[in-house]
Amino acid sequence: MIAKKVHLDEKEMPRAWYNIVPDMPNMPEPPLNPGTGQPIGPEDLAPIFPMGLIEQEVSQERWIPIPEEILNIYRLWRPSPLYRAYHLEEVLGTPARIYYKYEGVSPAGSHKPNTSIAQAYYNKQEGVKRLATETGAGQWGSALALACQFFGLECTVYMVKVSYHQKPYRRSMMQVWGSEVIPSPSDRTNAGRSILEKDPDTPGSLGIAISEAVEDAATRDDTKYSLGSVLNHVLLHQTIVGLEVKEQLKKVGDKPTVLIGSCGGGSNFAGLVFPYMPEKAAGENIRFLAVEPTSCPTLTKGSYAYDFGDTAQMTPIMPMYTLGHDFVPPGIHAGGLRYHGASPLVSVLHRDGIVEAVAYTQNPVFEAAVTFAKSEGIVPAPESAHAVKAVIDEADRCKEEGKEDVIVFNLSGHGHFDMGAYDAYFAGDLEDYTYPEEKIADSLKNLPKVK
Amino acid sequence: MIAKKVHLDEKEMPRAWYNIVPDMPNMPEPPLNPGTGQPIGPEDLAPIFPMGLIEQEVSQERWIPIPEEILNIYRLWRPSPLYRAYHLEEVLGTPARIYYKYEGVSPAGSHKPNTSIAQAYYNKQEGVKRLATETGAGQWGSALALACQFFGLECTVYMVKVSYHQKPYRRSMMQVWGSEVIPSPSDRTNAGRSILEKDPDTPGSLGIAISEAVEDAATRDDTKYSLGSVLNHVLLHQTIVGLEVKEQLKKVGDKPTVLIGSCGGGSNFAGLVFPYMPEKAAGENIRFLAVEPTSCPTLTKGSYAYDFGDTAQMTPIMPMYTLGHDFVPPGIHAGGLRYHGASPLVSVLHRDGIVEAVAYTQNPVFEAAVTFAKSEGIVPAPESAHAVKAVIDEADRCKEEGKEDVIVFNLSGHGHFDMGAYDAYFAGDLEDYTYPEEKIADSLKNLPKVK
Repeated sequence: MIAKKVHLDEKEMPRAWYNIVPDMPNMPEPPLNPGTGQPIGPEDLAPIFPMGLIEQEVSQERWIPIPEEILNIYRLWRPSPLYRAYHLEEVLGTPARIYYKYEGVSPAGSHKPNTSIAQAYYNKQEGVKRLATETGAGQWGSALALACQFFGLECTVYMVKVSYHQKPYRRSMMQVWGSEVIPSPSDRTNAGRSILEKDPDTPGSLGIAISEAVEDAATRDDTKYSLGSVLNHVLLHQTIVGLEVKEQLKKVGDKPTVLIGSCGGGSNFAGLVFPYMPEKAAGENIRFLAVEPTSCPTLTKGSYAYDFGDTAQMTPIMPMYTLGHDFVPPGIHAGGLRYHGASPLVSVLHRDGIVEAVAYTQNPVFEAAVTFAKSEGIVPAPESAHAVKAVIDEADRCKEEGKEDVIVFNLSGHGHFDMGAYDAYFAGDLEDYTYPEEKIADSLKNLPKVK
Repeated sequence: MIAKKVHLDEKEMPRAWYNIVPDMPNMPEPPLNPGTGQPIGPEDLAPIFPMGLIEQEVSQERWIPIPEEILNIYRLWRPSPLYRAYHLEEVLGTPARIYYKYEGVSPAGSHKPNTSIAQAYYNKQEGVKRLATETGAGQWGSALALACQFFGLECTVYMVKVSYHQKPYRRSMMQVWGSEVIPSPSDRTNAGRSILEKDPDTPGSLGIAISEAVEDAATRDDTKYSLGSVLNHVLLHQTIVGLEVKEQLKKVGDKPTVLIGSCGGGSNFAGLVFPYMPEKAAGENIRFLAVEPTSCPTLTKGSYAYDFGDTAQMTPIMPMYTLGHDFVPPGIHAGGLRYHGASPLVSVLHRDGIVEAVAYTQNPVFEAAVTFAKSEGIVPAPESAHAVKAVIDEADRCKEEGKEDVIVFNLSGHGHFDMGAYDAYFAGDLEDYTYPEEKIADSLKNLPKVK
């Protein structure tokens, strides 16, 4: 039996983002200024973010209207389809009902434009001319390049050097969309230069690239910084995903009991699950399950602590699950899940037992992805494949227990740019690596000292 | 101003394909048996095609109902979006109205599944267990792999050797979907072995790969052959594209005056334009414009003549525009446009002056593709980019003439697997090659002798 698409009309698309803050049982501790160690205010963020986004970052309002100009761009590919995975259910022989929200329909091929479009819009509104950002494998960089192209902003992307050379296709896409792409570390910034002096052959890392992009933005009047995950306003923009899912599930008269998303910084996970917070708070039976790689086990093996977002210690110090800001993740194929920290909002929900987390090694993840592609047709991005693995495990549990759970997950992107990873999987070249606990403990010794 | 999507509801999706045959002013001459030189009948095709498809190949019925099982799969991504390219119009400063039908939303990323799904269905209906086909860069092979996976058929794809090694990503996709992919020429067939004996290092060609796939199907009882373009039934299945466009344009009260598609074998072009044949025959002002590369200028520089579809002279002899079955196209990036022949239906319409044709070199095509991607967001496949170039030229003409033409084109696929070609374009490495007329004349000397 073939999958079935749950349609949502353009007119029924949500017109406001959902802000989870008023519904949080506990808020994260405030971010701290890296210089003074004092809680930061909007003025600390003003050099790198426009006021429109800073307001969203600290907003207490439950609903934040989506400007018409953003809706007009969302409508190019939104509402995105929700599918009932009938064929996968059949293949797994599970009594569970499985749905997936497919965000790969955007021009960049992932959920990332949900926030890049919004961020470019608010920057444009305030007269910003240029955005600087970092990217690993290029998913975020390409999404911001697209958004800047739509709004006529210049865009400079610091791309982790090893990806710049080894994964050229998303780089080409950024160039097609008119962005400047610079291998990081570069000689364009103090942060880059100081790392190159110590280690001219460094492959780079996301933490270093963030340092470069933040420095770029902080030192140029015409430029702001843009981040693709972690921060409150980024997660806010992604809630369009879960809000659409709610409308779509209403149409088929179903309610989720398990919501699953892969979790790097946390935005694709939060985008799906946060809109269900009111139901969960009201006692409904809904589990929130975050999935991460064992090679970068932020939620499952990290500590909830204050830490920097970057290597050069330039960002605010944030309370979050972290593996330490000098954690160097191994080169796994799910580039979007290779960050040492997690969103403060997701982190505190995990600390409070509201968000569960599970970690997998690469081979079972790709095995799950192939099972999914054979059943449903769509080839998942390696990041999204982590969610697929958890979905299959949950479906198997339902089979054992005879339970009719309703499992909904975020298929956050397609794998068209990641077929080399599938090749490596078929060739048996993928390592099932688990980051050693003692190395994590070492990194955690270097957390910033705060009161 | 941003593009706008013209929605079509799932319930409004066409439920029959349009067969142009009853509306053709002149039919192509009959295909001939390569052994006897006599017109072939259904029984000649039975060893390699199922009867359901042979009936469609020779059908005189204007409307052929689409089986519910095929509609259920189409609905996974259909109706595909039609966009009004407001932003591109603005960038070009043209008074023309430009629309594009986007077929890159299928799981394979192109229009090809419109026919692969149908072909797999009819084969499955008649108890076929396995399909054999050929592919160049992999667009068709991946579409058939997807379809066979949905219907539980085995699939063997003979992939042109140079692409097998140089363009591994669509190959990986076929493997994800469970197909066997064999570099061609191979030692699996007589055709392959005889070519390897003469030239062990041959890069292969589409003509050779077709010979291998046809031989594979003809020599195994459980196996049929499947072709991704050229034949009447393939073009028939693609008419879902143009039929949806008609419904979508009705919703915005517009009528096309120029319909544009890139043309290799002819299926993506025909899919868009054929459904407008009744209007054109009734005297409405609608131009049909086919776009091809100057490196493989079948319609613009070839002859309308009887020729083989493959190198080993195993296929029926068909009346078509051809560059000669031993034409070896240069290695341009639009792999889907590198075939020596064109569909007999498209060919006779071109001979009769109903279909116009134009050819471009690579650099202007990629320049147009980048202009499009910057305006509309979607990065076109190199094949589709040929149509984009013609669209921009037509829009410029409208600007000069002050005409408000309505230009509609088939954006048949995305370029996610072709970013290397964009890289080459940006690096200035693309050659603007025009196949020499004297070499075409040489190839045309080898046409089969028929009465």
